[in-house]
Amino acid sequence: MIATIHILGTSSAVPTSNRFPSAQLLDFGGEMMLVDCGEGCQLQMRRQNISLGKIRYIFISHAHGDHFFGLIGLLSTLSVLKVDSPLDIFAPASVIDVMKYQMNRLGYSLRMPIIWHELNEGFSGILWETPKAVVEAFPLHHSVPVHGFSFREKLEDRNIDPDKITLYDLSVPEIVAAKKGKNIQRENGEIIANSELTLPQHRPLKYAYCTDTTRVPKHPVIRGAHVMYHEATYLEKDRANSDRTRHSTARDAAQSAVDNDVEHLLIGHYSARYKRPDALINEARDVFPNTTMAREGMRIRIDSKRNTVQILPHK
Amino acid sequence: MIATIHILGTSSAVPTSNRFPSAQLLDFGGEMMLVDCGEGCQLQMRRQNISLGKIRYIFISHAHGDHFFGLIGLLSTLSVLKVDSPLDIFAPASVIDVMKYQMNRLGYSLRMPIIWHELNEGFSGILWETPKAVVEAFPLHHSVPVHGFSFREKLEDRNIDPDKITLYDLSVPEIVAAKKGKNIQRENGEIIANSELTLPQHRPLKYAYCTDTTRVPKHPVIRGAHVMYHEATYLEKDRANSDRTRHSTARDAAQSAVDNDVEHLLIGHYSARYKRPDALINEARDVFPNTTMAREGMRIRIDSKRNTVQILPHK
Repeated sequence: MIATIHILGTSSAVPTSNRFPSAQLLDFGGEMMLVDCGEGCQLQMRRQNISLGKIRYIFISHAHGDHFFGLIGLLSTLSVLKVDSPLDIFAPASVIDVMKYQMNRLGYSLRMPIIWHELNEGFSGILWETPKAVVEAFPLHHSVPVHGFSFREKLEDRNIDPDKITLYDLSVPEIVAAKKGKNIQRENGEIIANSELTLPQHRPLKYAYCTDTTRVPKHPVIRGAHVMYHEATYLEKDRANSDRTRHSTARDAAQSAVDNDVEHLLIGHYSARYKRPDALINEARDVFPNTTMAREGMRIRIDSKRNTVQILPHK
Repeated sequence: MIATIHILGTSSAVPTSNRFPSAQLLDFGGEMMLVDCGEGCQLQMRRQNISLGKIRYIFISHAHGDHFFGLIGLLSTLSVLKVDSPLDIFAPASVIDVMKYQMNRLGYSLRMPIIWHELNEGFSGILWETPKAVVEAFPLHHSVPVHGFSFREKLEDRNIDPDKITLYDLSVPEIVAAKKGKNIQRENGEIIANSELTLPQHRPLKYAYCTDTTRVPKHPVIRGAHVMYHEATYLEKDRANSDRTRHSTARDAAQSAVDNDVEHLLIGHYSARYKRPDALINEARDVFPNTTMAREGMRIRIDSKRNTVQILPHK
């Protein structure tokens, strides 16, 4: 599976002259998913030549404006562009209320059906699932209820080593069972381990998105991720602000990457006080060297079959 | 008086890779006034190093999202920045309702008092006035109720020619009357024309903002303006779209400039179908040569005492 994360915004509440509020477009094995939608999100997608009409799923982490004020403009443009594919939007109740009120009061009649999914405080579980992939929400810790999202590949049936079919004279039911990952018990009581019969599988793709939050503790839906995005609003020297506003420092993000044994850390959501976020990346890399500083226009490409994470240049 | 128009957005409903939705920041003799506030308006102001906290007045022409979806984000940022100066916002009822609902549902407690002024359909008259300046609204013609805005300098008392005081032996009441622009009647019945007693005055500064609208007819609050902004969404070859959506062509804008005898025409609100709006400026200049194509980052400076209009380079 291949997933590409397009960075659309990296600022925290107050945007800067070159940073937009939070938004990422995730091409998740061909499914276009928007993760948060700060003001100007549609403008950033236009700049990066991303087709607005291909978005099918939108996940809003929480009800702070810098994570969803771009949603009404995006819906409005999709309507003008006559996009009519259905759109599933996962968001807190207050965000849904605000969106519905605006569309109603302004007399919108959108072409596309919108399916609203309310994300209740503390909810943990599956939001979307196909035979090949799953998106799960999990609660984070901030000044208001927030959800993180985990995007994961589900591996298909295992491939049988053809030589072993002959060697063990496997029956069709035995092959089916082995493809499902089961060990095989023969009539004589002998057990053949699944690993003896099937080819090795690649590590399933995993991307975890965590913002806004204090340091994220160990969590099974993050553990071993190819990439974890963890907000890094402050430097340790501004720890007092971080504690007061329930945000993370760059060091927190890096420690979470260590704790969750992820392969690659992506930081973002930088406070406007840091004109250039270089100090943040240095602080994170002291703890977790494999850290990338998200910037508008950057793309991160995960290929699970090749087991690679590539940072692609700004568009 | 000096006024500077900062162009923040020039796109119509659908933004493009390099055009933001409608917004202008008008420094009107030192008073900072925002005229429309499309999505990303605060981002554009940040880019152009305009202090968000200095805005005191906001005028929203109509309830289409591309003219006000940036307002909630701007207010949110002003709150985060702890700006506490009062803000007067003039807008249609539906825009005010949408803003109030959002702030209430999201639990905002803004620091600055907001004074909401409802712009009713068809209203024509003064919105704001000081001894030195006035802002007037007037109805335009579009698919929904829209207001244009006229920003005008009010001239102070005339200056008396000192030589004439001696020559005519003017009394104090006569001087006061002459400063107010009146003719003077002497005891012997002789009338001295005001122009004989006072120095020539400069032409008062006038800026008229007209969007979204079909071609604006002659109107006294526009007539003779130093600069008129008139939307130019389409080219004449797309007249069918222009008629259907109640917008203007570049030729319409130019014809309105001729009809209103303005000095300088500024066009904007270009349809996304025109990647580069060069054809629009050419069409307008065929009818009204003194036309400028608004672009993000451009500034237009009007100095009424020097009677100059300067186009300043993009920031």
